[in-house]
Amino acid sequence: MESTVSNSVSNGSVAEIFASDDKEKAGLNPRNGFVSMGGIGLLKNLQPKIVSGDFGFILEDVPHLSDYIPHLPTYTNPLQYNPAYSVVKQYFVDHDDTVAQKIQQVFLSGSRMHFRRAGPRQRVYFKSDEVHACIVTCGGLCPGLNTVIREIVCGLHHMYDVKRVLGIVGGYRGFYSKNTVSLTPKFVNDIHKRGGTILGTSRGGHDTKKIVDSIQDRGINQVYILGGDGTQKGAAVIFEEIRRRGLKVAVAGIPKTIDNDIPVIDKSFGFDTAVEEAQRAINAAHVEATSIENGIGLVKLMGRYSGFIAMYATLASRDVDCCLIPESPFYLEGPGGLFEYIEKRLKENGHMVIVIAEGAGQELLSESLHSTDQQDASGNKLLQDVGLWISQRIKDHFSKRSKMAINLKYIDLMYMIRAVPSNASDNVYCTLLAQSAVHGAMAGYTGFTVGPVNGRHAYIPFHRIIEKQHKVVITDRMWARLLSSTNQPSFLSIKDVIEASKTESDLLNC
Amino acid sequence: MESTVSNSVSNGSVAEIFASDDKEKAGLNPRNGFVSMGGIGLLKNLQPKIVSGDFGFILEDVPHLSDYIPHLPTYTNPLQYNPAYSVVKQYFVDHDDTVAQKIQQVFLSGSRMHFRRAGPRQRVYFKSDEVHACIVTCGGLCPGLNTVIREIVCGLHHMYDVKRVLGIVGGYRGFYSKNTVSLTPKFVNDIHKRGGTILGTSRGGHDTKKIVDSIQDRGINQVYILGGDGTQKGAAVIFEEIRRRGLKVAVAGIPKTIDNDIPVIDKSFGFDTAVEEAQRAINAAHVEATSIENGIGLVKLMGRYSGFIAMYATLASRDVDCCLIPESPFYLEGPGGLFEYIEKRLKENGHMVIVIAEGAGQELLSESLHSTDQQDASGNKLLQDVGLWISQRIKDHFSKRSKMAINLKYIDLMYMIRAVPSNASDNVYCTLLAQSAVHGAMAGYTGFTVGPVNGRHAYIPFHRIIEKQHKVVITDRMWARLLSSTNQPSFLSIKDVIEASKTESDLLNC
Amino acid sequence: MESTVSNSVSNGSVAEIFASDDKEKAGLNPRNGFVSMGGIGLLKNLQPKIVSGDFGFILEDVPHLSDYIPHLPTYTNPLQYNPAYSVVKQYFVDHDDTVAQKIQQVFLSGSRMHFRRAGPRQRVYFKSDEVHACIVTCGGLCPGLNTVIREIVCGLHHMYDVKRVLGIVGGYRGFYSKNTVSLTPKFVNDIHKRGGTILGTSRGGHDTKKIVDSIQDRGINQVYILGGDGTQKGAAVIFEEIRRRGLKVAVAGIPKTIDNDIPVIDKSFGFDTAVEEAQRAINAAHVEATSIENGIGLVKLMGRYSGFIAMYATLASRDVDCCLIPESPFYLEGPGGLFEYIEKRLKENGHMVIVIAEGAGQELLSESLHSTDQQDASGNKLLQDVGLWISQRIKDHFSKRSKMAINLKYIDLMYMIRAVPSNASDNVYCTLLAQSAVHGAMAGYTGFTVGPVNGRHAYIPFHRIIEKQHKVVITDRMWARLLSSTNQPSFLSIKDVIEASKTESDLLNC
Amino acid sequence: MESTVSNSVSNGSVAEIFASDDKEKAGLNPRNGFVSMGGIGLLKNLQPKIVSGDFGFILEDVPHLSDYIPHLPTYTNPLQYNPAYSVVKQYFVDHDDTVAQKIQQVFLSGSRMHFRRAGPRQRVYFKSDEVHACIVTCGGLCPGLNTVIREIVCGLHHMYDVKRVLGIVGGYRGFYSKNTVSLTPKFVNDIHKRGGTILGTSRGGHDTKKIVDSIQDRGINQVYILGGDGTQKGAAVIFEEIRRRGLKVAVAGIPKTIDNDIPVIDKSFGFDTAVEEAQRAINAAHVEATSIENGIGLVKLMGRYSGFIAMYATLASRDVDCCLIPESPFYLEGPGGLFEYIEKRLKENGHMVIVIAEGAGQELLSESLHSTDQQDASGNKLLQDVGLWISQRIKDHFSKRSKMAINLKYIDLMYMIRAVPSNASDNVYCTLLAQSAVHGAMAGYTGFTVGPVNGRHAYIPFHRIIEKQHKVVITDRMWARLLSSTNQPSFLSIKDVIEASKTESDLLNC
Repeated sequence: MESTVSNSVSNGSVAEIFASDDKEKAGLNPRNGFVSMGGIGLLKNLQPKIVSGDFGFILEDVPHLSDYIPHLPTYTNPLQYNPAYSVVKQYFVDHDDTVAQKIQQVFLSGSRMHFRRAGPRQRVYFKSDEVHACIVTCGGLCPGLNTVIREIVCGLHHMYDVKRVLGIVGGYRGFYSKNTVSLTPKFVNDIHKRGGTILGTSRGGHDTKKIVDSIQDRGINQVYILGGDGTQKGAAVIFEEIRRRGLKVAVAGIPKTIDNDIPVIDKSFGFDTAVEEAQRAINAAHVEATSIENGIGLVKLMGRYSGFIAMYATLASRDVDCCLIPESPFYLEGPGGLFEYIEKRLKENGHMVIVIAEGAGQELLSESLHSTDQQDASGNKLLQDVGLWISQRIKDHFSKRSKMAINLKYIDLMYMIRAVPSNASDNVYCTLLAQSAVHGAMAGYTGFTVGPVNGRHAYIPFHRIIEKQHKVVITDRMWARLLSSTNQPSFLSIKDVIEASKTESDLLNC
Repeated sequence: MESTVSNSVSNGSVAEIFASDDKEKAGLNPRNGFVSMGGIGLLKNLQPKIVSGDFGFILEDVPHLSDYIPHLPTYTNPLQYNPAYSVVKQYFVDHDDTVAQKIQQVFLSGSRMHFRRAGPRQRVYFKSDEVHACIVTCGGLCPGLNTVIREIVCGLHHMYDVKRVLGIVGGYRGFYSKNTVSLTPKFVNDIHKRGGTILGTSRGGHDTKKIVDSIQDRGINQVYILGGDGTQKGAAVIFEEIRRRGLKVAVAGIPKTIDNDIPVIDKSFGFDTAVEEAQRAINAAHVEATSIENGIGLVKLMGRYSGFIAMYATLASRDVDCCLIPESPFYLEGPGGLFEYIEKRLKENGHMVIVIAEGAGQELLSESLHSTDQQDASGNKLLQDVGLWISQRIKDHFSKRSKMAINLKYIDLMYMIRAVPSNASDNVYCTLLAQSAVHGAMAGYTGFTVGPVNGRHAYIPFHRIIEKQHKVVITDRMWARLLSSTNQPSFLSIKDVIEASKTESDLLNC
Repeated sequence: MESTVSNSVSNGSVAEIFASDDKEKAGLNPRNGFVSMGGIGLLKNLQPKIVSGDFGFILEDVPHLSDYIPHLPTYTNPLQYNPAYSVVKQYFVDHDDTVAQKIQQVFLSGSRMHFRRAGPRQRVYFKSDEVHACIVTCGGLCPGLNTVIREIVCGLHHMYDVKRVLGIVGGYRGFYSKNTVSLTPKFVNDIHKRGGTILGTSRGGHDTKKIVDSIQDRGINQVYILGGDGTQKGAAVIFEEIRRRGLKVAVAGIPKTIDNDIPVIDKSFGFDTAVEEAQRAINAAHVEATSIENGIGLVKLMGRYSGFIAMYATLASRDVDCCLIPESPFYLEGPGGLFEYIEKRLKENGHMVIVIAEGAGQELLSESLHSTDQQDASGNKLLQDVGLWISQRIKDHFSKRSKMAINLKYIDLMYMIRAVPSNASDNVYCTLLAQSAVHGAMAGYTGFTVGPVNGRHAYIPFHRIIEKQHKVVITDRMWARLLSSTNQPSFLSIKDVIEASKTESDLLNC
Repeated sequence: MESTVSNSVSNGSVAEIFASDDKEKAGLNPRNGFVSMGGIGLLKNLQPKIVSGDFGFILEDVPHLSDYIPHLPTYTNPLQYNPAYSVVKQYFVDHDDTVAQKIQQVFLSGSRMHFRRAGPRQRVYFKSDEVHACIVTCGGLCPGLNTVIREIVCGLHHMYDVKRVLGIVGGYRGFYSKNTVSLTPKFVNDIHKRGGTILGTSRGGHDTKKIVDSIQDRGINQVYILGGDGTQKGAAVIFEEIRRRGLKVAVAGIPKTIDNDIPVIDKSFGFDTAVEEAQRAINAAHVEATSIENGIGLVKLMGRYSGFIAMYATLASRDVDCCLIPESPFYLEGPGGLFEYIEKRLKENGHMVIVIAEGAGQELLSESLHSTDQQDASGNKLLQDVGLWISQRIKDHFSKRSKMAINLKYIDLMYMIRAVPSNASDNVYCTLLAQSAVHGAMAGYTGFTVGPVNGRHAYIPFHRIIEKQHKVVITDRMWARLLSSTNQPSFLSIKDVIEASKTESDLLNC
């Protein structure tokens, strides 16, 4: 019975573990505490598929079709005959090729977590003419969505000679409530030059049963799901239901978040483009601020829970005097507060630029609303925009309490930044993501997401990227660099520092 | 004799009128019903300097230093010896060279208003080493301010060998409350590549007496004033006070308005750049809207009283379904209203893009606030932003009254657009403006503004550009083109049409 | 019979001339000294259609279908019922509405040439469902081609309810050697955001007989031809052949030239965009030049016979030390020559930027090749590129004859500039051009081109825009401005100046 | 004693090796087979400073001032008191913190090379007011040079309170033949927004003795050298000479190459920006090619020995049909050759885009010149440009040997791409590079370069980055991806593949 298998195969030597494809599959199959009762809430039963090796080596593997479907036939990877790939030395990923989650000095003790390396496999689990793939995009816009769509279609077509790819229109609910669109290399040829997603998107609409019914009814056997952590949770549930029904359907998630708040992976696609575009807004704010006495340029940027865009845009532009992010609490009044700093800065320089992530200061904002404006339903909504709220607070402070005439200009570019086409660097990145996903699905992996880990693309189990958010670590050097560049107060109490120190340090913060 | 002259010299043949410099001056001098009592409010005494000729020819001239200072010496224009200009055929503007305000078929009757043509004169009223010029920028930002500053400095320096140019810092109040900055060709060399104004700007701060005192005390004899209609009103008052004191100080205004709302002139600088930049926002809104079901992209653009930016950006981008401007009243509810149109459009296309000028729908907004939210002081302020207000109204309508789920994304790029550097076409235009102003001041003209009229640069009396605003004429073809391109309802009642038809037709709307 | 009528109706009072639609048509019909014998060379028989009025008024009219097809029925313009246009005051162009070629002070004597004003007419000569239009693009690329195509299609569709528009693929030869593409508003919806032309283009391929056969065989009755002066000559011949055959086919030319070298019209589409893009190259050249000792940045720009792009880009960028255009001859060696100037400039500043139009210095280049490299067939070809040639000459001079080590960087952006999408200002301009062409064809005009003259769109006879090229007048102020801004030598001998003075002064050079 | 020590400390346990600062210094000091005889050629004596640990751990360390100057005092790092850094957890880099050159599965055997981790140290070897730093930029332009300059100045100033930073003007020769410029945070404040280098640059001019004399005479004790591999070789020689003289001068190299051809480090600064800009050229070439029958757009990109820019721009743009790089030999004629492919592609698609790196096909080019054009001195020079050469060859082939009329447009954007300002991602990267260099020099390291290795910034010995070039490995997956995306022939013979397979696989090619 499925549920008896242990989750970690310990003590086997590495050589043994990876002895042969079949043996390993047999040994590892039992990925199956997973239960789906049709809702995202039930993901708690998801259990990792762990392989342990010598010297603390741990592989956190992703599910595979053969985990729950016995006797699946495999085929020679058609890439073998593709002239483009035929000359590649060691083109196919070895079975024991893994990616370390952390790079450390070897002499440090402790377990070392690894992921399965992404890339093409010698043998695949689908025949080319058997594949019927679909792609869906969910959640907010992000530069690069169209590039990923394009490259999944072209990757399947050119590398694996797969002809049937469906576009699901309008997010999850498109599975059951909309027509689909047939995606061909010709159709997607130029879409990477446009922002947004040609498939349309939506939030919510996740009805596991209806979606899997639709997948089953349409005969789809590869599902590519682009979206943020909510979407990936949904993908995990879809995978569970598919597994429960025993379908030969590979589910691949491609994590999408403009905020770069997905853990484990090095960087999310669209982030570079967003930072580039954010600089334009900061530059405009700087021009406005410097052109007028006591000018304050205030820029709101994306960042619901993670302030990466605000932090990198601040570091890149160098015109920012204060950067406020969700991870670093701040306060307005009193010594060490924002108002004091603004006043100081204006007196020194005559102007200043403030960047605020949309999720910053939410606790202040809630307080503020409760104490004064609680009854005001319609105003309330408007005020939940932290940019408008803080603009008003700054204006009020300097008009009422201080005798300083200030000139505040508020720039909110959020919807603008999301909608631009991806830049060259994100374009290349999206290509790798898409191809990795295609290789994974063709090789029979399922219930996985893809992404670069320490510069190498890996297959990562769903639960690892939805369990928490990647956040700016305010006790890391990168944030210190920012503080040093803006000269803003840290707004930190001793308690904050201790709290923050408990957070794991960030890999990117080299 | 100077003081006795009437305001219009009628019946003289044109040949006589322009007989000679001296004779004409004698004849036309009497520009002096002008009285200044130190405030902008007293401009009502400004009287035009009109010359009439045969066939209905009328020249609306600008003041000249010799109007009120007798026996001024003149000098040969140093440009005569400048190798760059020496080969130009008819380089110097003839005294009788004028620019027609309207171009019409000759066989139409009626008076034909002309302005004095801008350009270098054979003789100038300042020796190069006598000139002490100053430049001031007032009001909001506009692409091209730095280019104009640069070209005044370089024009004075390179064409007239003028070495002393002061920058007045921070708008009008900088004359008496701030230090000045010395402007050299080297200092201004690269400033046209930056947005904003290197001199800083401010609103208000116009204290005629203090300003003219400062001009007199510093020995300034050429004053270049960049700003919108309020600023030009101030310039007119400064000119009046200078004339009253009998100072040999030329006052030249360079009209600045990103909204293109200055009458008489063909187009204001920065407008082209603003339309270009506005397209980016519209494009983003379009991407957002098309990526989601019932997506509405709402873009607020500049345009307090005139909707030119919104109109041209709409025409240029072609992605807009509805363009709302101050000149065209609209209503929300009921048949033919905005909500009905939105619903229709979403049902047809699944998405729409709305562009709204900041001054559109102000009467609706006032009503709305009075009836419901009057007491709410803080909310009030927020709601005065028409973009936020209409976003809320649309959301409310579709959530409460209609059963349609909509997704509205609001993009407010106003401060962003103002702050970009001017594009190539505006750069060339700013050069011509600046050089025209310099030629005029050197030639002794004063109390004038410059600008292209039917493609030719002219000297225009202050009162002509401050008396009213240039507006989109909604019964002209250009607006019809827009309506045809967006397919939006005209929102017009019979009364509106009749009202609008009274407005003078617009020259640009070819 | 048609051919007996005189070409100028003199002495009739204007009132008479424009008495009524029918009367005028009867009176003016005789547009017909034109003979076509199937080749462009025979255009010499083209005779203008001139109407004279009082006071020296002259209208140079364009042909009309009714000139050679009697008893053509007319129809009410469907725009009358279009809600977008219904409220426009005087929407339809009056029959006597003309555009002056030159704007002058009325008291000057002499004839005053006018063109027929562009715009919709009260009555049209085609029923909507009768129209079968085609569009063809010929010659080199130019920003805005796709916008014009889009707006002809959308204009015909939305304004006149015309459903059948064919795209001729690959230039003139596409009429007889290629398939066509059906153009619908949906098909062209986004093409204005792309550079190039979706129809493809080619040079040559003009076979009058085959083209008119194809037009006749396909039942096409409106032909829109986008191209430069060669193309417009071809359009004139096609028109002649169509008239000879007595076909009810309107031929409308839309003049295209990135060089802005078309006479009569104010500016050609794509020019603004080209100047904007050219600035980028100049900026890069400036960075290169200033980063190295004795750095010379050399930029080649478009301009086969006219140096407008080089001139305006130089004026707009202000980083240029020398601008060489076809209209201003120059020489390399000796006093006052280019080498001397380069040496002087490098000694003063340590760097310089040179802009050269592709057609500049061709006479020098020919000489140089004849004297030294005549035999070298393959090198010859390379050397005909003036940019490469002058680079080599400069390098040779400073390495061999002078002891100065220079660092020359050559940037050739020509094909890059041609291929960018049009900017906002060109987009609006292209819309007006396309709509004017559509209104003209619908109103029965034929054998005409469109374009703005003094800011108003007019219908212009073919021969006026192909008879000569619009050129930079080097004795006008604009060129003087450039000389003053670059401080370059004028390279002019007395003879050159006299020669140049004979050229007509340029309207744009205000 | 210093000179007796072996170059590898083997067999010591890691714990011992890093026992204490002093002990380690004593043990490892003997970095000193280095001999300089004043010329770059003598670098062969450079010997690595190797530390070995358990399990194959090897640290390739960089020199330290204390290696050759005994008894150097150290100071507490002033960053300790900097509020921005005070809250950082483990802000200072531990002495045993290293960066692995390769990330591998631990169970693989073999030695594992490491570098010293970059970052601030607890103790520094310079007092703030003692530091006199200088910065020099050498070689070709690269986006980001100004950002690195800015951040060295600001880093020294804000982090270490260092006030004296000199800019050496015009490359290496500026040390002895030019004036210097004083660099302050105010002076460099906006320079990152400009392309090029404000310090100017040059090639060559490396006179070790004069340079070190100048360093000694001016009392400079920190030298920051930005440049490519030639420049870094020069830096190594300068370091040697400084060490020979026993000067307390830290020499830090910052590797600069737009081609991304520096080994060991993950990516060079400016590369991202260059790829972004290169896409614009490819896009233009694509528009040109698709607008005309048998259109060929040919784009030359940077890449003297390494085709990374061409490869990534091709992958990013997806409009390229053939990408030619130095690493992949190709041939023109015969089966499998370029001409055949072009013909095939044009017949299929009617157009094609070719990207060629400047160093591609050099062997073909040499042959071609020798056989046919050897005598032609001037033509010769022109033909050495591979873009012009291959253009001519393609044109010749299709005009002479084939009967196909082709239209080839050649775009050479090289100097344009080098001169743009760095994008946001490069800006952040340049900041980290600059700060790492500053931390290293302050900590007493010398003779080192900085750069990210597997995502972590490290101090790398000079010899490691100058010993060979980083190249595209054509048997790696990235190149296969490219081949698959362009469908171009591989042009490879069996021999080529075997040859190429010997090259080490590339880290980036994940």
